[in-house]
Amino acid sequence: MSILVLQGSSRADGNTEQLTRLALEGLPHKQILLRELSILPIRDQRHERGGFDPVADDYESVIMEVLRHDKIIFATPVYWYTMSGVMKNFIDRWSQSLRSADYDFKASMAQKKAYVIAVGGDDPRMKAMPLIQQMKYCFEFVGMSFESYVIGKASRPGDILQDTRALSDAMLLNRELGS
Amino acid sequence: MSILVLQGSSRADGNTEQLTRLALEGLPHKQILLRELSILPIRDQRHERGGFDPVADDYESVIMEVLRHDKIIFATPVYWYTMSGVMKNFIDRWSQSLRSADYDFKASMAQKKAYVIAVGGDDPRMKAMPLIQQMKYCFEFVGMSFESYVIGKASRPGDILQDTRALSDAMLLNRELGS
Amino acid sequence: MSILVLQGSSRADGNTEQLTRLALEGLPHKQILLRELSILPIRDQRHERGGFDPVADDYESVIMEVLRHDKIIFATPVYWYTMSGVMKNFIDRWSQSLRSADYDFKASMAQKKAYVIAVGGDDPRMKAMPLIQQMKYCFEFVGMSFESYVIGKASRPGDILQDTRALSDAMLLNRELGS
Amino acid sequence: MSILVLQGSSRADGNTEQLTRLALEGLPHKQILLRELSILPIRDQRHERGGFDPVADDYESVIMEVLRHDKIIFATPVYWYTMSGVMKNFIDRWSQSLRSADYDFKASMAQKKAYVIAVGGDDPRMKAMPLIQQMKYCFEFVGMSFESYVIGKASRPGDILQDTRALSDAMLLNRELGS
Repeated sequence: MSILVLQGSSRADGNTEQLTRLALEGLPHKQILLRELSILPIRDQRHERGGFDPVADDYESVIMEVLRHDKIIFATPVYWYTMSGVMKNFIDRWSQSLRSADYDFKASMAQKKAYVIAVGGDDPRMKAMPLIQQMKYCFEFVGMSFESYVIGKASRPGDILQDTRALSDAMLLNRELGS
Repeated sequence: MSILVLQGSSRADGNTEQLTRLALEGLPHKQILLRELSILPIRDQRHERGGFDPVADDYESVIMEVLRHDKIIFATPVYWYTMSGVMKNFIDRWSQSLRSADYDFKASMAQKKAYVIAVGGDDPRMKAMPLIQQMKYCFEFVGMSFESYVIGKASRPGDILQDTRALSDAMLLNRELGS
Repeated sequence: MSILVLQGSSRADGNTEQLTRLALEGLPHKQILLRELSILPIRDQRHERGGFDPVADDYESVIMEVLRHDKIIFATPVYWYTMSGVMKNFIDRWSQSLRSADYDFKASMAQKKAYVIAVGGDDPRMKAMPLIQQMKYCFEFVGMSFESYVIGKASRPGDILQDTRALSDAMLLNRELGS
Repeated sequence: MSILVLQGSSRADGNTEQLTRLALEGLPHKQILLRELSILPIRDQRHERGGFDPVADDYESVIMEVLRHDKIIFATPVYWYTMSGVMKNFIDRWSQSLRSADYDFKASMAQKKAYVIAVGGDDPRMKAMPLIQQMKYCFEFVGMSFESYVIGKASRPGDILQDTRALSDAMLLNRELGS
C-alpha cells in the first residue's frame, strides 16, 4: 500500500508541512509539492465537440503519480476557509481526467483511500468543517474511500507544535497509515 | 450604489453567466471576467520580514475595481463543490491585500455588500451549502455584509433556464440589487 | 399521490403554519399537529433482548398515517438551529419503527418523497443549513427521496408575509406538489 | 471552576456515558441524567401577552444547576444526526429562560464554557458536523464560549472502547477540563 502526499501549502516548511511530516514519520511515501509545479486553472471544455485541449503544464504528471499509489493524502492549509488555490486548481482539473482516454480515472480512483490534513488559523475545528464536507463530496464523486482527516490549528510558523490535539491525531493517523 | 460582478466561470456564456445576466438585467453594473485575467495563486509570505513581494499579474487592478464599488457579486460555477479555481486564486490573494500599505482593505470591504450566485450540476441546493458557508466566513473576516445568495442547478449548456426556482430567485435578487 | 403534513410548530397559526398553508393551497392533504399529540422521547432499547417495549402514546398512529401517504412534508420552526423538540421526539422514535414487526418501515419509506418547510428568526438561510443537512441524512437513512426544501425568515407573528423569497419558494413548492 | 455534565443519553451506561466518564475521570463534577427527569417540549408563548406560563416539570431545577456551574458539558448520543430528543427539549426551553424574571440567563451563560461530547454510529466524524455547528450557534446565541468537542463512533454497547481517536480526544479533554 504505497502512500502519496499531495502538498497544497504555498510556504516551505510551514505548519501544514510540519503536521504532515509527523503523520508520515517512518512511513515510506512520496510527496509532491504542488506549489513548485505549474498547474493551470481548468478551462471548462466539457461541452465542446473536441473535448478538452491538452494543457502544457504539470497536471498530467501529477495524476500519473496519483494513479500509481494506493493511499492519497491531501494536505492543505486552510486558506479562506477552504483548500489552497493550488490544490483547488489541481482538483478542478479532475473534470478533464474524467474524460481522458488514457486511463479510466473513476475506476482507478475508486480503488484508493483518501486522507485529509488541513491546518488553519481561524477556529479550524469549526470553520474547516465545510472544507472537510467538500472533500467528502469530491471523494464520493470519484468513488474514493474517505478514511480520516486531521485538523490542526496554527497561524504563525511553528504554532502547530502547540496544538496537542492535532499532534495526537497525527500520531493516530500515522498508525492508521502504517497498518 | 454601484454594482460589480466578479465572474468566476471558466466558460463563456455558460449557465453561471446566464443566471448572472438575469439577476443583473436592467441594472447598471461592471463585470470582470476572471478567466480572461492572470491571477496567480498566492505565495504565503505573511511571515517573511519584507512581507509580500509585488506580483506581476492582474490582481491589483481587480482589487482597485472592487474597492470602487458598493455591491460585489461573486458569481461562480460550483466546481468540485466549491468555487472555481480562478475565483479561489483571487480570494486567496486577499491575504496580500490585508497587508497592503496602499489602502485599508478591511475598512473598505466592511462598507460593501456581498452577494453570491453559484450554479452546479450535482444537487447544488444541498451540496453547495459548504460553499455558501465558506463565503459567509470570508465575508465575515473582512466585515462585508452577506446580503443573499442564489443557487442554480445546471449541467449542460442552457440547463439553467429549466430551473424555475433559480430563475425566480434571480428575479428577486434583481429587485433587491435595484432597490 | 397523497400528501401528509407533519406540523412541528408548537404555536397555533404561527409563521411556519402560515407558510405551510401557502405551500399546500388548493391541494388535498392531511395535516397532523404534533403538538396536540403525546409523543414521548425515545428510550433506546435497541440492544435489549426483548427489543423495544410498546409505548402508550400517539406515535404509532402518526406512523400509520405516514405509511399511508406518498409525499411527506416536514414543517418545523427552527428552534435553536434545528427542528422543534416535538418533531425531534417523533423522528427519534423511527429507531423503534425500524425494528417493528408490524410493517417494513424502510421499504415503505423508500417509496416516499420528502419535503421540508422550516421557518426561523436568526438568519435561517445560513443557520438552518445544518438542519437541512440533517434532514437529508435522515431521509437517506430510510431511503426517502428528498425533493426540496423551503426556508423562511420570521420571528414575530405574521413576519413570514414579508419574506418575498419564502413566499415565492412556497408557490413553487405548491406547483411541484401538485404536479 | 466547577463542572456540570448534562447527559442526554436515553440508555444507562451506553457509549456516550462511557466516553463522558473517561473525559471526566478524576475530576470533581456533577452529572444530570436528563432521561430520568421530566422536561416537556416547549410551548412557544413568546408572543403572548402574559409570556410563558410556568411549567410543572424539572426544567427549572436543571437550569438552576446550570447557572451554578462554570463548565457545562453537553453529552449526547447522535440520534438521527442531531442531539437526542431529551436534550433538544431541554435546549428548546432556553427560550423560556431568556424571558425569565428570576435570573439574567444570557448574562449568566455568557460567563460559562461549553463542551460537547457526541457519540454516533453512522460516520459521526462527518455526519455529526451539522450537530456541532448547531451547538456552536446555540452557544453563540447565549454568549457561551464553545471550548471544544469530542466525537466518538459507536453503535453496539461497548463499541466506544474501540475508537482510539475518541479515547485519545477524551483524554485531552480531561486534561483541558482539569487545567
